[in-house]
Amino acid sequence: MSRWNILVGGPTERWPEILKNDPKAIPGNWIGVDRGSFRLLKMGIIPKIAIGDYDSLIASERDWLEQNVKDIRYSIPEKDDTDTELGLKVALFDVNASEIVIYGTTGGRIDHELVNLFMLLEPRFRPFAERVTLIDKQNTIRFYLPGHHTIQKEPDKKYLAFVSLTKVDNLTLFDEKYQLDHFSSDDPISWASNEFIGDHATFSFQSGLVAVIQSKD
Amino acid sequence: MSRWNILVGGPTERWPEILKNDPKAIPGNWIGVDRGSFRLLKMGIIPKIAIGDYDSLIASERDWLEQNVKDIRYSIPEKDDTDTELGLKVALFDVNASEIVIYGTTGGRIDHELVNLFMLLEPRFRPFAERVTLIDKQNTIRFYLPGHHTIQKEPDKKYLAFVSLTKVDNLTLFDEKYQLDHFSSDDPISWASNEFIGDHATFSFQSGLVAVIQSKD
Repeated sequence: MSRWNILVGGPTERWPEILKNDPKAIPGNWIGVDRGSFRLLKMGIIPKIAIGDYDSLIASERDWLEQNVKDIRYSIPEKDDTDTELGLKVALFDVNASEIVIYGTTGGRIDHELVNLFMLLEPRFRPFAERVTLIDKQNTIRFYLPGHHTIQKEPDKKYLAFVSLTKVDNLTLFDEKYQLDHFSSDDPISWASNEFIGDHATFSFQSGLVAVIQSKD
Repeated sequence: MSRWNILVGGPTERWPEILKNDPKAIPGNWIGVDRGSFRLLKMGIIPKIAIGDYDSLIASERDWLEQNVKDIRYSIPEKDDTDTELGLKVALFDVNASEIVIYGTTGGRIDHELVNLFMLLEPRFRPFAERVTLIDKQNTIRFYLPGHHTIQKEPDKKYLAFVSLTKVDNLTLFDEKYQLDHFSSDDPISWASNEFIGDHATFSFQSGLVAVIQSKD
């Protein structure tokens, strides 16, 4: 049980600064997915595990990967799993990561972005949703199962959003700038542009899956 | 009944090329929301209607807006409606637009992006979902109510995705590269990276709201 980072192939301009400028300062082991593995190597980070069909790499790039990564796995192109799902399966079911931080999930194609947001709804991943964080340049996205939760403000983020990805029952925001009292909805909804009062916030809900996004302009 | 375009305040690097390089070639009238109104003026397009709280504009920018736009409307800051919802309300209920194309909805803050995707689930907007298109640099997003639909391939787009934003019943993809046969789900799901076979595609579903995304790398 430990922290594992996953790098998938989203556009580098959406990466957080630390990944661009000082990636070795990020704690934990790395899983590279497809082009993500190659990008890690280029930054001097050898992924513990590489997975993908590598169809976006040229032969010399593949060779370099194969010479440097000990545990390299080949997925079948046009398979059912997306790149992010491939990485998440390894992190959850092969190395039993307690904390999984995924980079490269946003920007570019919206269909990919939505896969990355909705994948935690799948029955195989859903019980583990709270282990997963998606991070990009302006956003930190965490996922919560029903219950009562406390979240810490990140110093560089201003905004707080509660996004019900499913039907939700009795979503209550206790101490945020804008509060909710037992809100229920049959459809997804994004309660955006909320803010912390102080350095933490508490909320609860009884059924559904809620993404909490801390963001900055 | 006619085409109206809405420009909201998302990052300009996510704009489609035509909006950046030749905005006057885009047919229809314009509604500018908040900073979007100012950006339209800077491109030489006078919005028929401007709406927003303009809290992101400095005084001289506001003055310029007030001198140039005949129909300028002031919304209340920290109101319940988001910028995009303000624009959409005007387009649907004040000018009865038959076709509404919204620019500036993606990039940057994910909570904003999700508001823009989920807003058409709201009862006030939902009956009109099929009038609305979101366009950015790599994606065209349309929304469909239950029924049988045919969509045309856009020449510059390669990928096709079907994103159920809600519970969905009997989603069937008849003639796409990857087909679905009466797929039902209680939760949202993004069927990404599909493709057209030929220049059109047909699909149907019996309940829910489905976003169809054409995209390119």
